[in-house]
Amino acid sequence: MNLSPPPAPIVDSILRSALAEDLGQRGDITTDAIVPADARARGAIVARAPGRIAGLSMALQTFELLDQKVSFETLAGDGDEVSAGQALTHIDGPARAILSGERVALNLLGRLSGIASATAAFVDAVRGTGARILCTRKTTPGLRALEKYAVRAGGGCNHRFGLYDAVLIKDNHIAIAGGVAEAIERVRRGTSSSVPCRIEVEVDDLAQLEQALAAGVDAVLLDNMDLSSLERAVALVDGRATTEASGGITLDTAAAYAKTGVDYLSIGWLTHSAPALDVGLDLTRLP
Amino acid sequence: MNLSPPPAPIVDSILRSALAEDLGQRGDITTDAIVPADARARGAIVARAPGRIAGLSMALQTFELLDQKVSFETLAGDGDEVSAGQALTHIDGPARAILSGERVALNLLGRLSGIASATAAFVDAVRGTGARILCTRKTTPGLRALEKYAVRAGGGCNHRFGLYDAVLIKDNHIAIAGGVAEAIERVRRGTSSSVPCRIEVEVDDLAQLEQALAAGVDAVLLDNMDLSSLERAVALVDGRATTEASGGITLDTAAAYAKTGVDYLSIGWLTHSAPALDVGLDLTRLP
Amino acid sequence: MNLSPPPAPIVDSILRSALAEDLGQRGDITTDAIVPADARARGAIVARAPGRIAGLSMALQTFELLDQKVSFETLAGDGDEVSAGQALTHIDGPARAILSGERVALNLLGRLSGIASATAAFVDAVRGTGARILCTRKTTPGLRALEKYAVRAGGGCNHRFGLYDAVLIKDNHIAIAGGVAEAIERVRRGTSSSVPCRIEVEVDDLAQLEQALAAGVDAVLLDNMDLSSLERAVALVDGRATTEASGGITLDTAAAYAKTGVDYLSIGWLTHSAPALDVGLDLTRLP
Amino acid sequence: MNLSPPPAPIVDSILRSALAEDLGQRGDITTDAIVPADARARGAIVARAPGRIAGLSMALQTFELLDQKVSFETLAGDGDEVSAGQALTHIDGPARAILSGERVALNLLGRLSGIASATAAFVDAVRGTGARILCTRKTTPGLRALEKYAVRAGGGCNHRFGLYDAVLIKDNHIAIAGGVAEAIERVRRGTSSSVPCRIEVEVDDLAQLEQALAAGVDAVLLDNMDLSSLERAVALVDGRATTEASGGITLDTAAAYAKTGVDYLSIGWLTHSAPALDVGLDLTRLP
Amino acid sequence: MNLSPPPAPIVDSILRSALAEDLGQRGDITTDAIVPADARARGAIVARAPGRIAGLSMALQTFELLDQKVSFETLAGDGDEVSAGQALTHIDGPARAILSGERVALNLLGRLSGIASATAAFVDAVRGTGARILCTRKTTPGLRALEKYAVRAGGGCNHRFGLYDAVLIKDNHIAIAGGVAEAIERVRRGTSSSVPCRIEVEVDDLAQLEQALAAGVDAVLLDNMDLSSLERAVALVDGRATTEASGGITLDTAAAYAKTGVDYLSIGWLTHSAPALDVGLDLTRLP
Amino acid sequence: MNLSPPPAPIVDSILRSALAEDLGQRGDITTDAIVPADARARGAIVARAPGRIAGLSMALQTFELLDQKVSFETLAGDGDEVSAGQALTHIDGPARAILSGERVALNLLGRLSGIASATAAFVDAVRGTGARILCTRKTTPGLRALEKYAVRAGGGCNHRFGLYDAVLIKDNHIAIAGGVAEAIERVRRGTSSSVPCRIEVEVDDLAQLEQALAAGVDAVLLDNMDLSSLERAVALVDGRATTEASGGITLDTAAAYAKTGVDYLSIGWLTHSAPALDVGLDLTRLP
Repeated sequence: MNLSPPPAPIVDSILRSALAEDLGQRGDITTDAIVPADARARGAIVARAPGRIAGLSMALQTFELLDQKVSFETLAGDGDEVSAGQALTHIDGPARAILSGERVALNLLGRLSGIASATAAFVDAVRGTGARILCTRKTTPGLRALEKYAVRAGGGCNHRFGLYDAVLIKDNHIAIAGGVAEAIERVRRGTSSSVPCRIEVEVDDLAQLEQALAAGVDAVLLDNMDLSSLERAVALVDGRATTEASGGITLDTAAAYAKTGVDYLSIGWLTHSAPALDVGLDLTRLP
Repeated sequence: MNLSPPPAPIVDSILRSALAEDLGQRGDITTDAIVPADARARGAIVARAPGRIAGLSMALQTFELLDQKVSFETLAGDGDEVSAGQALTHIDGPARAILSGERVALNLLGRLSGIASATAAFVDAVRGTGARILCTRKTTPGLRALEKYAVRAGGGCNHRFGLYDAVLIKDNHIAIAGGVAEAIERVRRGTSSSVPCRIEVEVDDLAQLEQALAAGVDAVLLDNMDLSSLERAVALVDGRATTEASGGITLDTAAAYAKTGVDYLSIGWLTHSAPALDVGLDLTRLP
Repeated sequence: MNLSPPPAPIVDSILRSALAEDLGQRGDITTDAIVPADARARGAIVARAPGRIAGLSMALQTFELLDQKVSFETLAGDGDEVSAGQALTHIDGPARAILSGERVALNLLGRLSGIASATAAFVDAVRGTGARILCTRKTTPGLRALEKYAVRAGGGCNHRFGLYDAVLIKDNHIAIAGGVAEAIERVRRGTSSSVPCRIEVEVDDLAQLEQALAAGVDAVLLDNMDLSSLERAVALVDGRATTEASGGITLDTAAAYAKTGVDYLSIGWLTHSAPALDVGLDLTRLP
Repeated sequence: MNLSPPPAPIVDSILRSALAEDLGQRGDITTDAIVPADARARGAIVARAPGRIAGLSMALQTFELLDQKVSFETLAGDGDEVSAGQALTHIDGPARAILSGERVALNLLGRLSGIASATAAFVDAVRGTGARILCTRKTTPGLRALEKYAVRAGGGCNHRFGLYDAVLIKDNHIAIAGGVAEAIERVRRGTSSSVPCRIEVEVDDLAQLEQALAAGVDAVLLDNMDLSSLERAVALVDGRATTEASGGITLDTAAAYAKTGVDYLSIGWLTHSAPALDVGLDLTRLP
Repeated sequence: MNLSPPPAPIVDSILRSALAEDLGQRGDITTDAIVPADARARGAIVARAPGRIAGLSMALQTFELLDQKVSFETLAGDGDEVSAGQALTHIDGPARAILSGERVALNLLGRLSGIASATAAFVDAVRGTGARILCTRKTTPGLRALEKYAVRAGGGCNHRFGLYDAVLIKDNHIAIAGGVAEAIERVRRGTSSSVPCRIEVEVDDLAQLEQALAAGVDAVLLDNMDLSSLERAVALVDGRATTEASGGITLDTAAAYAKTGVDYLSIGWLTHSAPALDVGLDLTRLP
Repeated sequence: MNLSPPPAPIVDSILRSALAEDLGQRGDITTDAIVPADARARGAIVARAPGRIAGLSMALQTFELLDQKVSFETLAGDGDEVSAGQALTHIDGPARAILSGERVALNLLGRLSGIASATAAFVDAVRGTGARILCTRKTTPGLRALEKYAVRAGGGCNHRFGLYDAVLIKDNHIAIAGGVAEAIERVRRGTSSSVPCRIEVEVDDLAQLEQALAAGVDAVLLDNMDLSSLERAVALVDGRATTEASGGITLDTAAAYAKTGVDYLSIGWLTHSAPALDVGLDLTRLP
């Protein structure tokens, strides 16, 4: 899996802000009172449930930000499937840094692995159909680059990263423009001061779809269609554009949607509602 | 409900960072191409599922950050129960700002309302028992103040905000100190340079519990106990400390846990895994 | 001209940093000593040379950041051609804010208008040929969004905004991959976790060009080719991909390059070396 | 040449912001797809045109910010004259960091070396006259400290760094004060709460010049005077103040201006309009 | 002494901002002109007056931020009493970094050691009485975490760190609520959505004190009482709450206040008015 | 008094950071629980001791940052002498904002007024002698611009703002250079790439002083000289340079130092050790 991590400065900034949030002006008053400054600890980060890992090396940076003397021996990597109880990394170093960084590290690892696991479940559900699983912009404020990365770790695909890197014409745009064709025409004119960029249109019915195809769009988002409408839409497109289905697709229904022949299933749930993967820190040697 | 919002600068900073993430260096290329700068729109933010609202006024600030001419007529407030289809606010103003800010606003509102709704469901489940629902530090990196607020909007209680504002002695601390009593003693010594602060100890069995009570702690976290152990623990405490149960408590089992007489149920799931509430923006008048 | 400005927070941040740089810890010691706090001034920002305007409303925000009581009556807009001596805006307000903000405002306006003017000159030079003028990533550190905007104000086109929003395979990539076809194949595999994105390849000769076309790329960057090679390349492409010429194209040679039938001329000089437009502030009424 | 670099935190902040601008939320999608994480490359940064170097060590920090394993063997230093084709530094390290950092590094190096080269050309033009070349506050927003450094690398002199570190009374100040003498008097009163600081006055004619000299200023800025007026002005000053000429001085006319005996020629063009020096990265060993 | 330092990111941010303030855009022009880049220096930071040390390791980080090659051999630690002339640390490294960082380092060390020394003097004054010395929120904007640390280094105690981590009901709160009991009742209701937190009430007379005790508060702040009232108040409390005296307590009167049996003396003077400890840098070996 | 305030962005940034420090993630839990959101209060900020005011309008901005509906009727201005009990401003607005902002506002006002009062006392002490009172770089980290302003409000003078805006050659510089003359010569050479700037030398005895005068410096800092040496030094200088005395000058000895004829007395104590002025907030009308 070619899984390029988000740019380092973005990860660094998120970790620093999470640490500041947890340490406040006073730091970890429990650990500082109980644990001598020179105490060392050794242990492992462990998956407590089966799932797909994402964010492990980022999570480990949390400890390094607190103390560069913390070291790791990683046993798993992002994108790996792990079983309940499986150790992901050994960790060794100053006990204070390990205890004070634990929650921030696990919060990030659990959330990103939850997203990767949810994505992997959808990918499994549609295996064999040719459909790909796609994420949306329904991400957590401030964490988009990391959550999109977690989707990739789960075997899913990323849609646009923001309003800035692709055109997606939605129902309100169509209503304001006064029709699909006029909306597309305005985009072509309005973005003529850039090199050509991919144009996707959200359509609700076959009439809109035909207009979009006539205008030569690159992709169509088939929103909230039932299975038989979706099948007809895919047939109508007939390879002239990339097709995406969205709206209320669940793990149970994903395979049926995929079998309509659509290229992508767009699943907002992956980033706005997937439960965290349960991960923990077991210390095995204490001073 | 006395529901004080998080400090304004924290909200402002989260919204600005979320907008920067979505707009990039180029802005909303679709909307800028299609929607004239002077077009106005009017519509409503609507709950698409029943739930408890949190973060509405914060979400509306998103639009104001894009254009101060956007105005609102709010129909519901944080902490309100709403039904599917219920409008939460009317919104009126420049169409570009409304369309470009929609996703950031809904992402925040949906997530916080999801947490409030999950909390409210737990609160309902234990109604009549005297037990309170408590959140943890298992929050999203960067969003803790907002997520703790959403728990309050759901009728839940906040545990400590970070490592800095209360002492919580956990298993690893006890192991390093060499016992419950010694851990508590170290905390008393170590925090003697502050005014007395609340001391809570996580205990796994009744032996540890007795040591904690003997040391005069303020609260005990009864971790991963089965129901009958929990009942014995509560009886043993007999009002000498606040009692919290944690570990694997679900909506189905919450009432049974609550009936043991424990003061608080601590539920990490509220902030790490509660699904978002489905909310949307319906534009009803377009230029 | 549909000329959407850069996202407001980016502009705001650049202006604040420029003001901090100019005011330091002490402020404008000359103006503070000479000009009474309640003195008002009135004047105009004037082009001292003919050119194309870009950045006027951004420049005016500089004064508002110093004092919200400064007001403007704008007489020209971004994208307008102006003559030497033409007033771009009247300005009226507290004299201290006008004098202390003058240099920062003019520095920004002069630089962006210089880029717009240079772009417009190239656009003029190729008028009638169908070729478009394209900018590059050779921009000033920290000012890319604004400089790309200035290119649009000059009638030019924007290429990608960064390494993140389009694929451009260059000579070093090809060398590392071991050939054009292999490089393209790696990109297809490596970016398979995104929706399809535009692939452009830089080619130095016709052999590479044929491989790129065979691989079905969207665009080819024909780098440092002489005019006859370029003509042959365009003929070879024959509409199968967008064509860009780059490398040493000047105002004098642009028309010749454009007549080869290439779609775009890529001109790094627009943002790394175009001279500023001479603009000034004339105060006409002083206290 | 005693050439102290700008404070390190300023350089670091500019480089980080330039990298963020180029990498976005996704990073270098081309390089990440094509270049294996463990591939190494070796090459050189080369001047493609003759000129004066400035910003080389700053530019190299760009690569270190991406990966600390990039190493350099520098062959030239800031302030050196180089010929076309001359290698400035060898570079060796992870290929991804070298390719992803290339543009940011070259953008900075090219711009600063362009300023240094332009300055050096003016210094050459006035060699033998005793006149010095001076820069102004007409710098790029956010880059002033670096651009002033580039002027020093070119053999030029820095005028004030901002409004805060020297007094310069301009025409508008004089108009508001009601005369040269009154403006100077106000400055003396107004800055009496500081240790004495250098006072310079911009004068347009000999009458103003006499008033300024009578008031005992440290320097006079002789703005937009023709050569014979300038000669008369220098004679009138007769060593009583430092003299600067400004306004429309070009490489062709600089020597004539310098021969009037003026101490400094003030050249805004150095920082607002000097073209970048053409620099490139040649990779010579690829994996 | 268990003296946990403030979280590292807070210290780092304060030092960077202090260095930026001192170096500006140009750096240390005196040192850069006089001291060769490769010159080394060796010396010691010395107390010029007797006192209690706080902030030594933070101060030394200043030099490391300028040049990582500066090294130290520390001879004293925070919380130590030192005599006039005593060396606190040897310092060795590049002379430029040592000279340019000297003032920022000494400013921080002198201020924090001044606070620690003042605190230690109060602690001495009440020795044997059982009373503890307490600081307040009357701290320097931006330095609270460091100043509270200095109080601990002086043997004193920290009161709350901000408005967020403890309840303190003051006279204005009581007036708005309409009485002590009602204010406490509102706090209990209003903070019911948190785990129980410590409630302290400021009382001016015995009547208010009785109401506070009746409501079961954890602590009472006995404000501006004379010694006999204070004695009566302590007797009335009789161990039912922690007692603090505040208002005009000086080194001369502290013992008398302490002998009333009050638990804490609250001394705003420690952080708002304690004089700095005189510390200096003696260079003993220069190039 | 021409008393220009520090640049607005610097003040704004200090206030925001102080508010963040005091409000944390949770805000003012006492006020939020007790004071209804719509309660209004009215009162006054009052000097509790006589002194010189500085920072009043900055302090009032604190309340506006919390709620723009807070309004003021100012009764005194920065630089005014006030008596104990004198009201400085009326304040009227939402009670929550007034109570939550009180401490941050008073901390700033008290500190800056303390510095202004201390400065004014020194200015009074030397009245009639012609000597001016000068501050140093011994300021609080992060507050230099504000503290230098407070010195001006007290009638004192500012020395350089940082290492960047004036040359001050100290004993260590002289030792490294190998003598006064060589140090001055190096500065002249090293700063030749700037317009001429003021050169000051710290001298310990008359021999050094003669060398400095021979080299034509602008100012001499006569460090730690006794009164008779100082008199001899002033006589030796005989107007050829500005003279400053520093080292251990107190309110009691200032007049004697001033009578030596020295131009400036340099007093680090003003900013590192002056006690805060006691200021308070009296609320007179509550809901």
